[in-house]
Amino acid sequence: MQRAHRQQSRRTLGWSAGTGTAPLRRPGAVGRGSGAGGESGHPLSRGRENTALFDYESGVKAAFDTIVPTLKQVSALQHESDFELRAQRLAQAELGFDLPEAILSDAWIAQLDMPQLFAWCVFETYRRYCDQFYAQDPLVAGDADEFEGFLQACGFHTLDISPCADGRLAHLVRYVLRLPHRSVRRKSYAGAMFDVDDSIQKWVETEMLRFREGRPNTADAPTRYLKLVAYHHSSVDPEHAGCAAHGSDTRRAAAAGLERLQAFQQAIENSFCCGASIDLLLIGIDTDTDAIRVHVPDARGSIDLDRYVDAQALFDATCRMTATQAASLLGETVRGCSPDVASGMATLIERLLEHNLSQIDYVRGCYGQQYPDGDHAERFIGAGVGFEEVQLRNLMYFAYLDTVEEAAQDLDVGVKIFSALNVSRGLPIPVVVRFDYHGRVPGARERAVTHCQRVAKALFGRYAELAGRGLLHVMQVVRDCNANASIEVLECSVNATPAAGAH
Amino acid sequence: MQRAHRQQSRRTLGWSAGTGTAPLRRPGAVGRGSGAGGESGHPLSRGRENTALFDYESGVKAAFDTIVPTLKQVSALQHESDFELRAQRLAQAELGFDLPEAILSDAWIAQLDMPQLFAWCVFETYRRYCDQFYAQDPLVAGDADEFEGFLQACGFHTLDISPCADGRLAHLVRYVLRLPHRSVRRKSYAGAMFDVDDSIQKWVETEMLRFREGRPNTADAPTRYLKLVAYHHSSVDPEHAGCAAHGSDTRRAAAAGLERLQAFQQAIENSFCCGASIDLLLIGIDTDTDAIRVHVPDARGSIDLDRYVDAQALFDATCRMTATQAASLLGETVRGCSPDVASGMATLIERLLEHNLSQIDYVRGCYGQQYPDGDHAERFIGAGVGFEEVQLRNLMYFAYLDTVEEAAQDLDVGVKIFSALNVSRGLPIPVVVRFDYHGRVPGARERAVTHCQRVAKALFGRYAELAGRGLLHVMQVVRDCNANASIEVLECSVNATPAAGAH
Repeated sequence: MQRAHRQQSRRTLGWSAGTGTAPLRRPGAVGRGSGAGGESGHPLSRGRENTALFDYESGVKAAFDTIVPTLKQVSALQHESDFELRAQRLAQAELGFDLPEAILSDAWIAQLDMPQLFAWCVFETYRRYCDQFYAQDPLVAGDADEFEGFLQACGFHTLDISPCADGRLAHLVRYVLRLPHRSVRRKSYAGAMFDVDDSIQKWVETEMLRFREGRPNTADAPTRYLKLVAYHHSSVDPEHAGCAAHGSDTRRAAAAGLERLQAFQQAIENSFCCGASIDLLLIGIDTDTDAIRVHVPDARGSIDLDRYVDAQALFDATCRMTATQAASLLGETVRGCSPDVASGMATLIERLLEHNLSQIDYVRGCYGQQYPDGDHAERFIGAGVGFEEVQLRNLMYFAYLDTVEEAAQDLDVGVKIFSALNVSRGLPIPVVVRFDYHGRVPGARERAVTHCQRVAKALFGRYAELAGRGLLHVMQVVRDCNANASIEVLECSVNATPAAGAH
Repeated sequence: MQRAHRQQSRRTLGWSAGTGTAPLRRPGAVGRGSGAGGESGHPLSRGRENTALFDYESGVKAAFDTIVPTLKQVSALQHESDFELRAQRLAQAELGFDLPEAILSDAWIAQLDMPQLFAWCVFETYRRYCDQFYAQDPLVAGDADEFEGFLQACGFHTLDISPCADGRLAHLVRYVLRLPHRSVRRKSYAGAMFDVDDSIQKWVETEMLRFREGRPNTADAPTRYLKLVAYHHSSVDPEHAGCAAHGSDTRRAAAAGLERLQAFQQAIENSFCCGASIDLLLIGIDTDTDAIRVHVPDARGSIDLDRYVDAQALFDATCRMTATQAASLLGETVRGCSPDVASGMATLIERLLEHNLSQIDYVRGCYGQQYPDGDHAERFIGAGVGFEEVQLRNLMYFAYLDTVEEAAQDLDVGVKIFSALNVSRGLPIPVVVRFDYHGRVPGARERAVTHCQRVAKALFGRYAELAGRGLLHVMQVVRDCNANASIEVLECSVNATPAAGAH
């Protein structure tokens, strides 16, 4: 039953290339450096990886984007005599799953509750997307095992990344930087304004594990904790499509990120003795092209807002070189930017930039000079702790949180974005509340369940007006991150809960 | 200015014995084992300490309890022509401070805003009480330095105590158990239902500091983290005056405490390798007599709800013995209760029981067979992180919290208690929102200030109806726990903020 369902998922979510709904073209490059696609192609670009990433991205997004056109057709059928039968046939053909009978069967009373049906379909598609992710591991990185050793050789035992909660940065780890997503920590905050106390807690835990269990290396290894902040800007519409939390002001976004990094560093230095410190890295992302800029630190670790390497310029300067020439210029550029940069830091930055060249190539090859959806186009909001599977651009607005009370600002930004995207046309805001837990700890699941309930209640309290109009729907899910399992759906504010208890 | 103010505080708060408002009698015993006071006196009771503790307790409580009778007199004066002058004279004489002119000067318009004036006086008295506590350290324990070594000799490097948030347990550490308050961790929760994740975090930090900084001892020392839960019951009115969070059911309170302890232990054992574990201890407190019962663990650390030593019975059995005989019987009773108890655990329990005999003697000597205020009589609610100065019974209902969202249940219990105590007679609920911070960490004060504001706002949101009627007032305070400073008052919902900015 479960297996049959998964196979069906695979087909209808379109993971294999060439589904009818896959948008645009595939990246031109197929092998490393083949550069077969006109403007597309770069000697350091990984064409095969680009193809696989594009197939995955377009398949997932098609699954979400088929919902509205399908429901439009369903709506047109609702007063036909064999409505339910025809609606289910259509849903199976287009979406790959049945619609909830509870909602369809009430259509004769007044009319089909389209907002509810829409929310239900988004949640069901999300659930199927999670099932597929955890069953098939579609984004597994070939170099995941190598990465940890590489990072330590560069002088770092942990890479802790805080991007902006903006959905246009949700693919930062696996796409923009091409890093193995399980090998780095990612916690997203509006404006990348990460919580210093949360990071201190992570640092403390990391140090404890190094001392006590030798994970990921022993405490005597001369490596440090690296905190990376990723702010963002828009090259196409810098004054409107930049970071909302910083008023679309690129310099302000960068300065705020740097300030928060320094606060974290000072907190570690002043709270613990014996030379405790961390290393810092600041990068900016152009959300129209995915090109990054890296603020290369100097020998003392100092970061200058005006001193950075721009991957876009590097791409243009190296795209007609051989791979060797390009790699060489890349290294020179990093060291030219900050001549006394620590060697390990320079090596890490070179790798990030080289990886990013593949992503610039990917965007050019698949979408042209820039993304067509330059502004927000997230499909749902994710709130809580978890969401490892969300590694795709503009899929989810991510508010990492323990409580609505502390993350009110982040959530308000998300609700504002979705008020424009959905509420303005009468569609509800779908919110997935999620808390992952360690199943090997007795009681942890119960605490995660309670946590979900508390946050869902607080969301309905904070956005009572929207909820009262049926324009806010919440699905509560938990996941055991010790088992290699998919999510478990707990409950849902839509009348019919997507596959609750199916796992 | 500051010094003069403090001296005045000292006088009018009545720290020295014999103020006109000091209630009841002093403990009969003055020297160790002197047992001069009739029923009072026990060979192991520390009479001098009892006297000092009573002077302090009665002085602080008198300062709070003078507020209502003084305001009644002020109320009677409010339509006199020289009202403001006479009110200030009265306040200075009785309370030791001036009333806020802003409130007095509006009395002619309709009438004196008594609820506001009451809240202001409670907050001002609290502020002066804190000033005195941090300036003079009235509860300093003579054996504080020795205690850490003793604890480690018993096999424990940390003593982490979670009592119930009930104000009748607020004196648990310094009075009931006679421990140095700075040497133990105390986090209070309704029903003693402590947050497992918060405790795990503290365990992680403790391990890290042992490994990294050798604090409080090095990680190779064979000591463990000891978590103690204190539930409570009432011998006088067991079915009504027990723990509200557990429906005044003693067995349920004890069972829930044990269950939470075991959940914490299992979480540590299952989350970390290399034999990581903790030790557990469960005690119960009779809030009428302060007598404890200690559930002595067996050799494997197992705790039985029915197997405990009752300090009350021990007191009665030993009160006519010599100190040597009494100490000997105490040791026999502990080992008789659980013959294979670990030697260090037995030694610690013996000390806790011996200390508690002083407290039983204290209550008998000062108040008779039981406390006259057997039920709730807290003067205010404290919400947040800090409150080191609150070591007195029935002074404050303590909700240890980061957010109102997570601690809603604890706060609801507190608000229910104060609805009976204050709101029922038209007096507001005074809430002190407090976050202590480490001043040596840049930005920490600003984060504590933001934290206060967020929690205060959430309180007004959750209890909007009470606040709208002027029956909920909040004073926000922070404290730098790196400096040996008093609290800093930020703002207050009463029109006039008590001494804001004076520090």
